[in-house]
Amino acid sequence: MRRIRLIAEYDGTNYVGWQIQPNGESVQGVIERELCSLTHEDIRIHGSGRTDSGVHSMAQVLHFDTESRIPADKFPYALNVSLPHDIRIKYGDEPPAGFHSRFDVRKKHYRYTLYCAPHASAFCAKTALHVHQKLDFEKMCKAASFILGEHDFAAFKSEGTELSSTVRTMYESQWTRDGKFMYYDICGSGFMYNMVRILVGTMLEIGKGYLDEDAMENALKTCSRNAAGATAPCHGLMMTRVEYDGFDTQDYV
Amino acid sequence: MRRIRLIAEYDGTNYVGWQIQPNGESVQGVIERELCSLTHEDIRIHGSGRTDSGVHSMAQVLHFDTESRIPADKFPYALNVSLPHDIRIKYGDEPPAGFHSRFDVRKKHYRYTLYCAPHASAFCAKTALHVHQKLDFEKMCKAASFILGEHDFAAFKSEGTELSSTVRTMYESQWTRDGKFMYYDICGSGFMYNMVRILVGTMLEIGKGYLDEDAMENALKTCSRNAAGATAPCHGLMMTRVEYDGFDTQDYV
Repeated sequence: MRRIRLIAEYDGTNYVGWQIQPNGESVQGVIERELCSLTHEDIRIHGSGRTDSGVHSMAQVLHFDTESRIPADKFPYALNVSLPHDIRIKYGDEPPAGFHSRFDVRKKHYRYTLYCAPHASAFCAKTALHVHQKLDFEKMCKAASFILGEHDFAAFKSEGTELSSTVRTMYESQWTRDGKFMYYDICGSGFMYNMVRILVGTMLEIGKGYLDEDAMENALKTCSRNAAGATAPCHGLMMTRVEYDGFDTQDYV
Repeated sequence: MRRIRLIAEYDGTNYVGWQIQPNGESVQGVIERELCSLTHEDIRIHGSGRTDSGVHSMAQVLHFDTESRIPADKFPYALNVSLPHDIRIKYGDEPPAGFHSRFDVRKKHYRYTLYCAPHASAFCAKTALHVHQKLDFEKMCKAASFILGEHDFAAFKSEGTELSSTVRTMYESQWTRDGKFMYYDICGSGFMYNMVRILVGTMLEIGKGYLDEDAMENALKTCSRNAAGATAPCHGLMMTRVEYDGFDTQDYV
């Protein structure tokens, strides 16, 4: 039995999310089906984490165990022949013994993209949030800076989510601009369900002037979901990079 | 009667091209239909030029005449409500008297995008040509430089196209690179049907080593279609900018 590690890129628009669910086609489900058909085995894959419906990834790490003799670096070629065009396998290898794509994650990176213009774009409607209102970039940058470091992110947890701890550490949290695009890049030890989207939603409301400049600081201090903003739409979010000890997706995609 | 000028952006993937055709939905047809429905008039629109099936534009200029009292700058808002998401109107104004979107064009710009990697991308499959072979960037740049200036582009004319002259002047012709993407930008006084795609196809064959380094020079000299390469696929091509005396789409999109 060998363990195989793959990196998958996917446009999440047409899927119910990463994880297999009864209500529609999932990215995990599609990849598993192709792997089973390729190896004639009953294969279960394990991703580095879930992504919600409509959320994208350019660096989802997954692993599975197989008796197949297909070389690890040939899996991408074999799978890409039959996978739909919005799911691509970019890399394959045999990880060190005991590697686990979810338990061994050290850092995860996400990017949220805004398209700021009076009219939407014909090209990035599914990968960027169109914002036609004026945004106060400086205020959004200041709010982003409060996120850095170790905090209790309870205010940025979806209601109903049960977790032993809501404390996480953020290593990067910043907005940048390039023409009509604004990007929010965040890197952390881990993220709760919807956490990045609630952080972005809060900063969007600060940028539009709907929330006070100190709303981010307050939400982190009070741990109250009501102090934070609405959850930003799914389609602007992308998982961009996953880091492990000795393995960084950035080196392969 | 007023003349209105609009700038349209569209992802050409789902259309038979700009021009109305009997075999399917065209971008022109969709915009005309929405304009007729908006104004209750029988409106015909005139574009700066055709784009083929699957070719994109971020700067198609069009004009039409109307009795409607809708302010020119409100047409984008009114049309974008009902247009499909892959067609967006980005700008509207009333041009100087006598303006014609096709006859008055001074310069047109196109970009052809390559995605160079072992595996295709889940995100740009419809807007970039995936190339997995190694390309000789220097040779492609050299070939591009021969295109600059006034030439008889007869070798880059689709067979069957009847034209009074195949002489055109090119003001820009260059390849650039950014990570896995390679861009070919060309600007000229005018282009024949499929001309940019045959130029790119020729340079791709030079880059892959299928054609000699001097193939571009030879094709321009001999005016023989056989001396040039195959027509590159439509989906990597985008109309990026149209220039008129006193009006440049780049200032508005």
